[in-house]
Amino acid sequence: MSEVAGRMSIQAGATSLEITNKGSGILLGGVPGVAPAKVVVLGGGVAGTNAVRVAIGMGAQVVVIEKSIERLYHLDLQFGSKITTVYSTIDAIEEHVTTADLVIGAVLIPGGSAPKLVTRNMVSQMRQGSVMVDISIDQGGCFETSKPTTHKQPTYIVDGVVHYCVSNMPGAVPRTSTFALNNATLPFVLSLANYGYKQAMKQDGHLLNGLNVCKGKLTHRAVASALHQEYIPAEVAIG
Amino acid sequence: MSEVAGRMSIQAGATSLEITNKGSGILLGGVPGVAPAKVVVLGGGVAGTNAVRVAIGMGAQVVVIEKSIERLYHLDLQFGSKITTVYSTIDAIEEHVTTADLVIGAVLIPGGSAPKLVTRNMVSQMRQGSVMVDISIDQGGCFETSKPTTHKQPTYIVDGVVHYCVSNMPGAVPRTSTFALNNATLPFVLSLANYGYKQAMKQDGHLLNGLNVCKGKLTHRAVASALHQEYIPAEVAIG
Amino acid sequence: MSEVAGRMSIQAGATSLEITNKGSGILLGGVPGVAPAKVVVLGGGVAGTNAVRVAIGMGAQVVVIEKSIERLYHLDLQFGSKITTVYSTIDAIEEHVTTADLVIGAVLIPGGSAPKLVTRNMVSQMRQGSVMVDISIDQGGCFETSKPTTHKQPTYIVDGVVHYCVSNMPGAVPRTSTFALNNATLPFVLSLANYGYKQAMKQDGHLLNGLNVCKGKLTHRAVASALHQEYIPAEVAIG
Amino acid sequence: MSEVAGRMSIQAGATSLEITNKGSGILLGGVPGVAPAKVVVLGGGVAGTNAVRVAIGMGAQVVVIEKSIERLYHLDLQFGSKITTVYSTIDAIEEHVTTADLVIGAVLIPGGSAPKLVTRNMVSQMRQGSVMVDISIDQGGCFETSKPTTHKQPTYIVDGVVHYCVSNMPGAVPRTSTFALNNATLPFVLSLANYGYKQAMKQDGHLLNGLNVCKGKLTHRAVASALHQEYIPAEVAIG
Amino acid sequence: MSEVAGRMSIQAGATSLEITNKGSGILLGGVPGVAPAKVVVLGGGVAGTNAVRVAIGMGAQVVVIEKSIERLYHLDLQFGSKITTVYSTIDAIEEHVTTADLVIGAVLIPGGSAPKLVTRNMVSQMRQGSVMVDISIDQGGCFETSKPTTHKQPTYIVDGVVHYCVSNMPGAVPRTSTFALNNATLPFVLSLANYGYKQAMKQDGHLLNGLNVCKGKLTHRAVASALHQEYIPAEVAIG
Amino acid sequence: MSEVAGRMSIQAGATSLEITNKGSGILLGGVPGVAPAKVVVLGGGVAGTNAVRVAIGMGAQVVVIEKSIERLYHLDLQFGSKITTVYSTIDAIEEHVTTADLVIGAVLIPGGSAPKLVTRNMVSQMRQGSVMVDISIDQGGCFETSKPTTHKQPTYIVDGVVHYCVSNMPGAVPRTSTFALNNATLPFVLSLANYGYKQAMKQDGHLLNGLNVCKGKLTHRAVASALHQEYIPAEVAIG
Repeated sequence: MSEVAGRMSIQAGATSLEITNKGSGILLGGVPGVAPAKVVVLGGGVAGTNAVRVAIGMGAQVVVIEKSIERLYHLDLQFGSKITTVYSTIDAIEEHVTTADLVIGAVLIPGGSAPKLVTRNMVSQMRQGSVMVDISIDQGGCFETSKPTTHKQPTYIVDGVVHYCVSNMPGAVPRTSTFALNNATLPFVLSLANYGYKQAMKQDGHLLNGLNVCKGKLTHRAVASALHQEYIPAEVAIG
Repeated sequence: MSEVAGRMSIQAGATSLEITNKGSGILLGGVPGVAPAKVVVLGGGVAGTNAVRVAIGMGAQVVVIEKSIERLYHLDLQFGSKITTVYSTIDAIEEHVTTADLVIGAVLIPGGSAPKLVTRNMVSQMRQGSVMVDISIDQGGCFETSKPTTHKQPTYIVDGVVHYCVSNMPGAVPRTSTFALNNATLPFVLSLANYGYKQAMKQDGHLLNGLNVCKGKLTHRAVASALHQEYIPAEVAIG
Repeated sequence: MSEVAGRMSIQAGATSLEITNKGSGILLGGVPGVAPAKVVVLGGGVAGTNAVRVAIGMGAQVVVIEKSIERLYHLDLQFGSKITTVYSTIDAIEEHVTTADLVIGAVLIPGGSAPKLVTRNMVSQMRQGSVMVDISIDQGGCFETSKPTTHKQPTYIVDGVVHYCVSNMPGAVPRTSTFALNNATLPFVLSLANYGYKQAMKQDGHLLNGLNVCKGKLTHRAVASALHQEYIPAEVAIG
Repeated sequence: MSEVAGRMSIQAGATSLEITNKGSGILLGGVPGVAPAKVVVLGGGVAGTNAVRVAIGMGAQVVVIEKSIERLYHLDLQFGSKITTVYSTIDAIEEHVTTADLVIGAVLIPGGSAPKLVTRNMVSQMRQGSVMVDISIDQGGCFETSKPTTHKQPTYIVDGVVHYCVSNMPGAVPRTSTFALNNATLPFVLSLANYGYKQAMKQDGHLLNGLNVCKGKLTHRAVASALHQEYIPAEVAIG
Repeated sequence: MSEVAGRMSIQAGATSLEITNKGSGILLGGVPGVAPAKVVVLGGGVAGTNAVRVAIGMGAQVVVIEKSIERLYHLDLQFGSKITTVYSTIDAIEEHVTTADLVIGAVLIPGGSAPKLVTRNMVSQMRQGSVMVDISIDQGGCFETSKPTTHKQPTYIVDGVVHYCVSNMPGAVPRTSTFALNNATLPFVLSLANYGYKQAMKQDGHLLNGLNVCKGKLTHRAVASALHQEYIPAEVAIG
Repeated sequence: MSEVAGRMSIQAGATSLEITNKGSGILLGGVPGVAPAKVVVLGGGVAGTNAVRVAIGMGAQVVVIEKSIERLYHLDLQFGSKITTVYSTIDAIEEHVTTADLVIGAVLIPGGSAPKLVTRNMVSQMRQGSVMVDISIDQGGCFETSKPTTHKQPTYIVDGVVHYCVSNMPGAVPRTSTFALNNATLPFVLSLANYGYKQAMKQDGHLLNGLNVCKGKLTHRAVASALHQEYIPAEVAIG
C-alpha cells in the first residue's frame, strides 16, 4: 500500500496545485524555459521512493530529505542527477520546506506515530498556494497542521497552504490497490487456511510479526507503546 | 501552450481515473506485480510528445498513434522501449482506443478543425470508467463525443466513459502558462513596438504567418477554409 | 551460467522467430510504426533478469511474471516503464503466455525440478509460429511440452509453436562461458588445492553447500528429494 | 527497410558468432567479469543507427565509424558513453575492423554502389571466427570479400571469418517487414490510385524522386551512373 | 572546438572550485546527503550543450539560460529532469548567476563580439569562492569582468570570485583537439588542394562562408561590423 | 569520505591529463569522432563505484577490475553498456593498466594495507603522459610506485607517468567533506554525549567496531595485524 500511496501523492499534489483547487497554479514539470515546481519529499523509504519516481517522471525538481545515510546512498545511486539528497536536520527541513511548491510527508514508522517534522511556523512561511500531502496521516501525520480528510473533501487550507491529508489514499484507485493487496496477502491467507492460525504463525515469522492483538492483549510493541497499553510478545500470547 | 496542455492532459486523465471522479479506479503506473494503465496518445506532435513523456514518467504503458513516418521514427529514437509506436490507420485506432484506460486526443492542425478520429461506436466499446482527454477541443475536438467543458465542471460521461474536454487547459496553471506565453511572445511584442505592425511583419515571416484577420479580411488560409470565407494572402492584405 | 543462459535465451528466441526457422516472422523490436514482439519471461531471478535486459535492449515489449513481491519490487525499480511486472498466478500465466510471441522459461530452483508452469493446453492456444525457450530444461523444464534438444537440432514444433530447449545453452558461446566459469570457480579451486577437500569445505560454507555426492551418499537435500534417495548432511558425510 | 535490416544485422551477427555456426563462440554482451564482444558499425545513417541501438541493447562494446561530422555529433548526443564515435579514415577502419568480433557494413548510398571500405587484407588480419554482416550487399557490398547469400545458406567463410551477406534480410521477418512497407508506401499508393502516375508525381516531389525508369529511360541519376547509361531527368521523361 | 571548450569548461570549473585554487571548496556532485554545486550555463548552443552534459555527468545541479525557445525545447527533450531550462532575461540571469557556485559563459556569436550578460554588479553579489569560466573570451567574453588568461596562470580573482578565462582552452588537450580539428578541416583541405581556392569556394558554400579576409578586404559581415570596417561579399572579393 | 575521494579522483585525473600538467593532453570524454580516454578503475567498492560514475559522466571509456563476482554483477546491472567489468587477475590488470590513459587505484581494505596491484614494470609500459590516481594512498597505496603527496604539490612523474597520490583528497573540497563527515558522525556523537563511551559502544556495534585503540591496546584486528602489534578485542578492552 505504501507504493500506491507514494505514487498517488504526487498526482494528488499536482492536482491540488491547480488554481481551481486553490493551489498556486504551477505545473509540476514547468515547460521549456519556465522552471518546474520544487517537490520536497520527507522520508526516502518505500513510499518516499515511489513519490520521488513519479515526481521525476512529471518533470519536477526533487529534493529528498532522509536521516539514514545508507538510504541516501541508494537513492543517489538510483536517481543520480535527477534528485538532490539531503541529510535530515531541522535546519535542512526548514530551508527546503519553506521554499517548496509541494511537500510530501512520507515518514512511516511501523506501528508507531509519525514525528511532527514540519511545524506550524514553517507552514506559515510557505508561499501562498503551495501544497502539502501527508501520506503518514494514518499514523497521526508528520506535519503539525495535518488532520485526516476524505476523498469527498480531500483538502483544507492553513495559512494559505493547501493540505491534502486523505487517510485512505489507495481507496481512490481500488482496481490497482485491491490486486496489490491480494498479491501481498495471498501467501498468508493460504497458509492460514491450510494450517490454522497457530501453526501458520509458528511457521512464518513475518505472519507472527503482523499480529497486533491476540486474546485481548496487544502483541505489537510499537502499537502498545503508542496506545500506552501493556505489551505481550506474540509468541507468548498465542500459546 | 501545446506543451502545457500536453503535460496537463495526463495529470487530468490520471485524476479522472480515480473512482471518486467516476473513473475505473486504476493507478496510471500500477505497482510492482499489478499492471499499469494503458495510455493511448493520438498524435505525436508537440502536445502528444509532452503527453507521452509525462505518461511514461508516471509509469503507464504508452502507445502513440501517428501518421507521419518521420515523427514515428523520432519518437522511437527518443523513447525506445518505453513506448509502442503505431502507424495511424482506422483499424489501429479502433484496436488501441477500445482497450485503453486513458486516451489523449492530441491531433492539432494549425488553424483548421481536428479530424474526428474516435467514433461514438469506438467509445461505446471501451471499458466502463475509462477516460478520454481531448486537447484539440479548441478546434472542435478529435473525438466524435467531445464537447467543450470548463475547469469548474471539467468532465461528463458518455457510454460510461469519462470525457475531459476543458477548452482552456493551461488556465489551471497560470503561474506556468503566463511565463510560457511571455517567453514565446516577447520577441514579437518588442518587434511590433519598435517597428509598427507593417514593418514588423515584413521583417519576420513567422509574425506574418500569425496574422489571421486584417482590415476585415481573413488572411490565414486554414481559418478561412474552416469558416468557408474568402482568403486573402497576408502580404496582400497589409499592403 | 544463469547469466549466459538468460542472455542467450533472447538471442535464440529472436532467431527462432525468423520465418526460415518456422517462426512467425516477427522482428523482436518491430520498427517505428509496427509494434514489437511481446516477450513473456517466467521468473525474475538471475536468468530471468538477464533475459529481460536483452529483450528490452532489442526493443521488445516485456512482461515478467514472478511470485516474489520483493523481486517484483526490485525489477520495477530497475527497469521502470520498460517492463510490466506481473504477480504469478495461473490466470496471469495463461493470459500472458497465450498472447506472447516469445516465452522464456526461467524458473530455476537450485537442485530441484522445475514446476510445469505452462501447460499443453496453453501452448495450443498460442499463435502459430510463436516461440518458447526453456532455460530450466536441465531441471526437467518448466513447460509441459519441453524435452531436451541439442545445438545441432535446437528446435522442434508442438501445436505450431517452436520450442527451443537446448540443455547446454552456454555451450554455444564457450569463449564467454569458459571465462565466466573460471571466474566463478577459481577461488574454490585454489582453496581445494591449498587445503584439501575436507579442510576447504570446513572453511567455506559456500563450497560445502555445493557438495552433492560424497562417499556414495547424496548430500544435497533438494537433489536427494528430486531423486527420492536418502539425504545425508554434507558435514556428516565428509566426517 | 533500412531499419529492419539494421536491427536484424546484430541478431544475425550474434547468432553467427555461436560456435555451432563456426563463429568464435563469444556472447555479444559478455557477462559480468567477462568482456563483451566488440562491434564495429561502418556508417551512422538509419541502418547503422538501428544496428547501434540493438548492439548496445545486447550489451556489446560499440564503435561507429562515420565520415559526416554532423552525424557523429548526433550519434554522440544520442548514445553518449555507450558508444565510441570515430571519424572515418582508412587507418581508423583498419584499426577497428581488425580487432572487432563483429563488423556491420551499413554504408548505403541511394541508388549507387557501395564503396569497398574493408579490404581482403583487413579481413585476413581478423581473429578466426569473427563475423562480418554486409547490409549494403544489395548495392554490391562494402567489404571486398562480400558476395550475396540467401536465408537458406546465409554464411560462408573467408580467411576464417564468417560472412553473412543475405540480400533480402527483411525477408526473414515478413510479419514486421510487410507492415513497415505498407506504412511507408500507402500514401504513395493512394496518391497514384487517386490521381494517376503523372499527376501524382507532379504533386509529390518524393514520389518523383523515386522514379528510376520511365518509357525505357533511366530517370535516377545515381542508377544511371552506376550502370553507365544515359540519364534523363524524371520531370522530362514523364512529360 | 566548441565541443572541446564546452566539455573542458566544467573540468576547469570543478578544479577551480577546490580550496587550494581559492575556490569555495565545494565538490561539483556533492555526496549523498550533501547538496551538489549549482552550475549555471549561459547559452545552450554546441558549447553550452557540451558543458551541460559534463556538468550533469559530474552530478551538479544544472540550470541553462538561453533565449531561443526552440533550443530550450530541444534541451528539455534531451535532458529532461536532469536540468532546469530558463528563458533568458536580465532578471533570470541575475537571479541564477548570483546564487551559482559555477557560471559558464557559453554565448558564442559567429564572428561577432559576445554580449556582456553578467555585470560587475552581479559578480559582486556572488558567494566568495564561486567560479566563472568564460568560453567566449576569444570574442571579448560575456562577463563584464572577463579578461584573457593563459594555461600558465589560468585564473584571477574579482570580488572574491574566481575567473577562469583561458583564451585557448582546447590547447590543454592537444591530443584530442588536434584530431578534432583534422576531422573538421580535412574535407576542406582536400578540396583546396584538388581545385585551388577559387574553384573550391565556388563549389562549397560552407568554405566560402569561412572566408574572412580576401585581397585585403573583410569578407565576413560580422567580423567587419565588429571591427568597424567595410564589408565586401566573399563571392565578389574572390572574383 | 570514500565517496568524496572516488568522485574527486576522476576530476584530479582529468586535470592531470592536461598537457600543462605534464599529462598526455587527452580530454576524458573525447569529442564526436575522436575516441575518449580509457579509464581503468581498480576496485568496485564505494570509492570505485563513485569514480566509475563520474568517469562515465565525463564521457570516458571505463573498465572496472574487481575480484568479487557479486560486486561485478551489481556494477553490470547498474551501469550496463556504459562500462566493461573485468574479473581481477594479474593478467587482466596488466592488460588494461598498460593501455589506460587514467588508472584509479580504489582498493580499500578496512584498517589493513592495500595490496600492490600495479607493479613498477606495468607502469613502465604505459604511454607517456598517462595518469595514475591512488585513492588508497592512506593505506600505503595500491601501486608499487605510489608515495604520498599534498594538494600543494599533488603530482610527480615515474617513467613518464603522472602520479597523483594526495593523502587527504577530500581536504580540497571542505565545504562538501565537512558536511558529509557531520552527517556520518552525528548519530555517534549524540550517542557518546548522551550515554558516555562505554554505554554508547555497548548499545551500538558499529561504534564498537570503530574503536581502534583503548587504554593503550590495539582493539582493531586489521590495524594490529598491519602494525604487528598485539590485538585485544574491543569489548574486552572497554571492560
